[in-house]
Amino acid sequence: FIKQSFDGANEADIAALLDELNMQEALYVLRLLEAEVAADILIELDEDSLTKVIYEMEPTELASYIDQMDSDDAVDILNLLTIREREDVISHLQEKEKSEHILDLLRYDEDSAGGLMAKEFIKANKNWNVIQTIEEIRRQAEKVEKIYSIYVVDNKQHLLGRVSLKKIILASSDTKIADIYEPELISVPTHLDEEEVAEIMRKYDLESIPVVNAKNKLVGRITVDDILDVIREQSEEDMQAMTGISADVEESDSIFRISKARLPWLLIGVIGGLMGAKIIGFFEEGLSKYIALASFIPLVAATGGNVGIQSSSLVVQTLASKSVFDDTPWQRFVKGLLIALLNGVVLGFFVFAVVKFIYGFDAIFGFTIGLAMFCVVLLASFMGTVTPLVLNRFGINPAIASGPFITTANDLIGLAVYFGVAMMLLKL
Amino acid sequence: FIKQSFDGANEADIAALLDELNMQEALYVLRLLEAEVAADILIELDEDSLTKVIYEMEPTELASYIDQMDSDDAVDILNLLTIREREDVISHLQEKEKSEHILDLLRYDEDSAGGLMAKEFIKANKNWNVIQTIEEIRRQAEKVEKIYSIYVVDNKQHLLGRVSLKKIILASSDTKIADIYEPELISVPTHLDEEEVAEIMRKYDLESIPVVNAKNKLVGRITVDDILDVIREQSEEDMQAMTGISADVEESDSIFRISKARLPWLLIGVIGGLMGAKIIGFFEEGLSKYIALASFIPLVAATGGNVGIQSSSLVVQTLASKSVFDDTPWQRFVKGLLIALLNGVVLGFFVFAVVKFIYGFDAIFGFTIGLAMFCVVLLASFMGTVTPLVLNRFGINPAIASGPFITTANDLIGLAVYFGVAMMLLKL
Ligand SMILES: [Mg+2]
Ligand SMILES: [Mg+2]
Ligand SMILES: [Mg+2]
Ligand SMILES: [Mg+2]
Ligand SMILES: [Mg+2]
Ligand SMILES: [Mg+2]
Ligand SMILES: [Mg+2]
Ligand SMILES: [Mg+2]
Ligand SMILES: [Mg+2]
Ligand SMILES: [Mg+2]
Ligand SMILES: [Mg+2]
Ligand SMILES: [Mg+2]
Ligand SMILES: [Mg+2]
Repeated sequence: FIKQSFDGANEADIAALLDELNMQEALYVLRLLEAEVAADILIELDEDSLTKVIYEMEPTELASYIDQMDSDDAVDILNLLTIREREDVISHLQEKEKSEHILDLLRYDEDSAGGLMAKEFIKANKNWNVIQTIEEIRRQAEKVEKIYSIYVVDNKQHLLGRVSLKKIILASSDTKIADIYEPELISVPTHLDEEEVAEIMRKYDLESIPVVNAKNKLVGRITVDDILDVIREQSEEDMQAMTGISADVEESDSIFRISKARLPWLLIGVIGGLMGAKIIGFFEEGLSKYIALASFIPLVAATGGNVGIQSSSLVVQTLASKSVFDDTPWQRFVKGLLIALLNGVVLGFFVFAVVKFIYGFDAIFGFTIGLAMFCVVLLASFMGTVTPLVLNRFGINPAIASGPFITTANDLIGLAVYFGVAMMLLKL
Repeated sequence: FIKQSFDGANEADIAALLDELNMQEALYVLRLLEAEVAADILIELDEDSLTKVIYEMEPTELASYIDQMDSDDAVDILNLLTIREREDVISHLQEKEKSEHILDLLRYDEDSAGGLMAKEFIKANKNWNVIQTIEEIRRQAEKVEKIYSIYVVDNKQHLLGRVSLKKIILASSDTKIADIYEPELISVPTHLDEEEVAEIMRKYDLESIPVVNAKNKLVGRITVDDILDVIREQSEEDMQAMTGISADVEESDSIFRISKARLPWLLIGVIGGLMGAKIIGFFEEGLSKYIALASFIPLVAATGGNVGIQSSSLVVQTLASKSVFDDTPWQRFVKGLLIALLNGVVLGFFVFAVVKFIYGFDAIFGFTIGLAMFCVVLLASFMGTVTPLVLNRFGINPAIASGPFITTANDLIGLAVYFGVAMMLLKL
């Protein structure tokens, strides 16, 4: 019955359904289906469910599903196992070619072009004619689900160019591939970072891209469906970095898991706040003389935080889409400074005016708050611009610059500046 | 010379170069190139440069480029003009079919499936055989650059399914399309939001998707290259909403433009801060008796902000990838409450311990700060969970819930709660 009602349902939908079942039920459903369908569902499961399900399978069962998968998806699943289990599963694979492909792909970093590419694609020797190429397509038809372009290589497997299926269909049977292929072709090296691959495919409107090794030999192909997943994963990572959620959690995870992912960052904020309390405590004497100073603490802290986040997110955005025409770090720095000056003057003056004319404080007090605002805007801009650049230089995701750690640091600097300015101007 | 050195360069790269030139120079370069190449470059320009360049062109010149474009890109450019200019350009188009396509596409909302689709694609009647289909491909070869799937329709243009180019190549010439097409096919209606189209194409690994009208008639096709642009635009919008940058700015824009985009949100924060000053001023008498209360103001405000951002970003993430198996609003609410309780207890107790045992305040004061923390965590979680849901319900981008407006509101609520708790417990 289950088998029947799944007939015609899409694998991605079944996978979404299985994600909601417990592991035993999911296994039961998978075993009712044909190995090919079950394989398609496995690769669409989310990582939590997938890990649980494959840990319950015998190596032979898992191998039977992996036999049906594209090499890139097979490797993603094998990467969830220990090295020993992995070898066990690979030894049970039916096809020798598939296990060679998998062993090759396992060598690459998961987050690089090599970790994204698959070994299933069509290549044609430039000396072939159209008939020979169609024969090759027929031979591989079962294995290569989506063809897109046929990559053209020379006798040494060096990548020369591509020819589209459209051209193959429209050319006469004896046309030489050498005469119809397009030699201009964008390829990526195996070690390129997955996000850079994504940006290249977006920029040049590609649905697939060939991957070459250091000798320009064609070793694999990346398809755009996997790139869509990379982009989504990246934007979730950035969002989590910016908001201080440490592990990869979703709203559907358990309460305890979500709490555990959030608490560390909240604690950083709290410790920062407690340090801020020490800083303010240090100025307590002055504060007791000029109690109104306390009222403007949240104003100063919040503005520092907001300015810092704005500056850093603009830098993060630029880093994500870097081009050759970017400003130099120095130009960027000067520009950031000018923007901060402009914003600082406007906000400082606004605050001065409100404090003096609307709230009715004396001019020197208004000037103190206004000047403190100005200084905080300048400093927070500086921190917000420099921090992501430094993080990026050290290979850390620059998006965390907008996260709680940096905003907390900004808050503390803001407090110190605020009371420093007040001490000087109000002679406390 | 310029023409020569651009030979072999990719249009996307030339466009990136022209973005950096002034409008006169860019126009000069475009006019040196063939209309077809110039058209490809135009569609890759960023919106600022594009707007400037097309405003300098005569309708006939612009029409000559638009004649070379796919209908979806043509419409994107025409949408930058006034209705009058648009009609002027369309009247100068050479191909009647193209202008009909364009007039049809102009009817759809830019952010819907109809606004993304192009009229260039291959469809085959189910009664055709393979030879007839190849003839159709030959006829359209010039116009349809990338074919992907051939969509199969009946005599009334109702969408029935698809057949891949691979199948066409491998089938014998007299095979009927009706015998080889795949009837299971995912399509989208013209009015579907562009982000939902993107999520469908990601989920089902599609490189193109057919668009149908209310009568299930095939009216267009969306390709994945345009979806990659939608996703990128969306993640930039979300980032800007979260960090309070109002217009669509990049780091390369002018200082004045960046300032203008940022200031409104900073001002909201400042006005919030000034209101906070009023709230604190209201408790000034109590504050002067217990001056140490001032020290913990930033702690309370920052924690409220951090908790609120974490809660709202988790909700935003869930909204972006909604599935049928999502928790109901009520379950979500209870879960959020439990997480907040857990975090609130941990943080409240931590703060109490530090304030009492490390900072050496008396127990009642420590308890005050700890309890205030607990209340603020609960309230901020509540606000952070509810706000994006409410915004989403009203069709507003829920990501702005993590922006300055909401964090400012959270700060104010936090202050009120803090002083409220302190008033009660310390009997001020
Ligand atoms: Mg990854
Ligand atoms: Mg992989
Ligand atoms: Mg593009
Ligand atoms: Mg793949
Ligand atoms: Mg896939
Ligand atoms: Mg990554
Ligand atoms: Mg749009
Ligand atoms: Mg459009
Ligand atoms: Mg996918
Ligand atoms: Mg297009
Ligand atoms: Mg395009
Ligand atoms: Mg949009
Ligand atoms: Mg804050």
